[in-house]
Amino acid sequence: MRCRSFHLPSGVSLLVIAALTLAALGASEKPKAKSMADVLAESKSSEWRELDPENTIYLELMNGRVVIELAPRFAPQHVANVKTLAREHYYDGLSILRCQDNYVVQWGDPNAEKPELKRQFTKGKATLAPEFDGESKVPFTKLPDPDVYASETGFCDGFPVARDKKSRKMWLTHCYGMVGAGRDVPLDSGGGRELYVVIGHAPRHLDRNVTLLGRVVQGMELLSSLRRGTGPMGFYEKPEEYTPIKAMRVAADVPESERTMLELLRTDSPTFKRVIENRRNRREEWFAMSAGRIEIGNVPLPVRTVRK
Amino acid sequence: MRCRSFHLPSGVSLLVIAALTLAALGASEKPKAKSMADVLAESKSSEWRELDPENTIYLELMNGRVVIELAPRFAPQHVANVKTLAREHYYDGLSILRCQDNYVVQWGDPNAEKPELKRQFTKGKATLAPEFDGESKVPFTKLPDPDVYASETGFCDGFPVARDKKSRKMWLTHCYGMVGAGRDVPLDSGGGRELYVVIGHAPRHLDRNVTLLGRVVQGMELLSSLRRGTGPMGFYEKPEEYTPIKAMRVAADVPESERTMLELLRTDSPTFKRVIENRRNRREEWFAMSAGRIEIGNVPLPVRTVRK
Repeated sequence: MRCRSFHLPSGVSLLVIAALTLAALGASEKPKAKSMADVLAESKSSEWRELDPENTIYLELMNGRVVIELAPRFAPQHVANVKTLAREHYYDGLSILRCQDNYVVQWGDPNAEKPELKRQFTKGKATLAPEFDGESKVPFTKLPDPDVYASETGFCDGFPVARDKKSRKMWLTHCYGMVGAGRDVPLDSGGGRELYVVIGHAPRHLDRNVTLLGRVVQGMELLSSLRRGTGPMGFYEKPEEYTPIKAMRVAADVPESERTMLELLRTDSPTFKRVIENRRNRREEWFAMSAGRIEIGNVPLPVRTVRK
Repeated sequence: MRCRSFHLPSGVSLLVIAALTLAALGASEKPKAKSMADVLAESKSSEWRELDPENTIYLELMNGRVVIELAPRFAPQHVANVKTLAREHYYDGLSILRCQDNYVVQWGDPNAEKPELKRQFTKGKATLAPEFDGESKVPFTKLPDPDVYASETGFCDGFPVARDKKSRKMWLTHCYGMVGAGRDVPLDSGGGRELYVVIGHAPRHLDRNVTLLGRVVQGMELLSSLRRGTGPMGFYEKPEEYTPIKAMRVAADVPESERTMLELLRTDSPTFKRVIENRRNRREEWFAMSAGRIEIGNVPLPVRTVRK
């Protein structure tokens, strides 16, 4: 099979064990060292956690489901508001309005600024005060390597975070797949009615400028492969270019049989530390040299499907 | 127009002045500081360079053209070989075989390992010794900020590069849009018959492990928005999923009237230094705070269409 030649080893952030195992076989038939699949295969089941259905959102598109894990520790008001809005069906029938290459995909109400046409809501809040950062006295798996934008980076609750040593503040970082609440110029003009996801190189200059509230844990390719918008900032120019949102649901409100059952490797587990070391020091036969370092955007956050 | 609300300012890497001007208007109606469009509008024409048609490749797809600038200073043998192969029409009718989310798109011969079916070539070389890095005594616009993977980063000839202070070696970095020559396990198993482009967060751990030879300067969205492959490492599982390559041409071999006329901002120009400072210190009204730093993958490399 020709796939075995001229390849590059996998560097994907969302990993499913089955795929990993195959990728490892493809990358090297005689591995010198443990592959990522080996590291994960040696994990204990207690090192994995199921998604909490109360903090999981399903963005339902015509061609599949995007699963988003919410981050209530970092953006409690925004998370609560997105759930409230989802529960009053605010997002159902709205659209993906923007796809800017190497930047973001964004969805919301195409008629948000037309009083007579805009989607109504009664329980959710129109806007919220920003939740750009918070206290850092929380569990934190620190990366051993430096970062360009912050004094420390690492992981908390399964999310990529940065921490400032002086101010002791911690915040979610704009890594690939992170989901945030768009805002206008006033800092309190967001709130979650319009959401975006990072689809390119981590735009870390947005950190602490806009409220991040979650991360795509499955279905990212449904967003990242959308046709790019040709208007300013990647907005689509014509309504027929929009991607319709069938529904956006809190997973807890979906019958159990229809839920997407995923497990995520705990970022405070010994195996996750081994994942980091495995990626810092690439010893697969393919590699001529190993960086010996890693930047937060290149650390995989392993996800696996629960076998029912 | 609703696009004015709930947005994020542009962070795109490939910029065309017209789009920039509109984006700046969208981002803030009363800019506090110079926008990127302002900075570029103040540039001198001598700070821009045209693409050299002898070092430009057109990857022609059914729905458009991808323009790739080659990097002969960094990968002279690979650049020469890709041009030779293009000139003997090696790539014409081959396919995009792989699209791995947040990683790479890759094209080549689907039958490369079937002796009776594989595409023949007579002038190009099947494989080449790697060109992972080179001497660093070359013009270099250094970024003032640190990097996670290298002691220094910056730009040379319009390409993102890293430099090691000790060894004085310099190499192209795996930033978004960079093009390289896939290889198998042996270091000299590449050569340019199979090419890849980075479509996600910069996989910098690949630096000095695989030969980079150019960068997409226009048409990136034709590759980055392809449907992701579902096989191991994002390879497509069925031939009908391949994207056909109509042709791959050296621009110099295309009639002048059919060439894509672009200019790139010289990375050794005063205006490019101002672009870097403008992105390090975001002062547009939208920003609550500015990072005051920038990582190489977030530095835009401005491109504009030549007005005929």
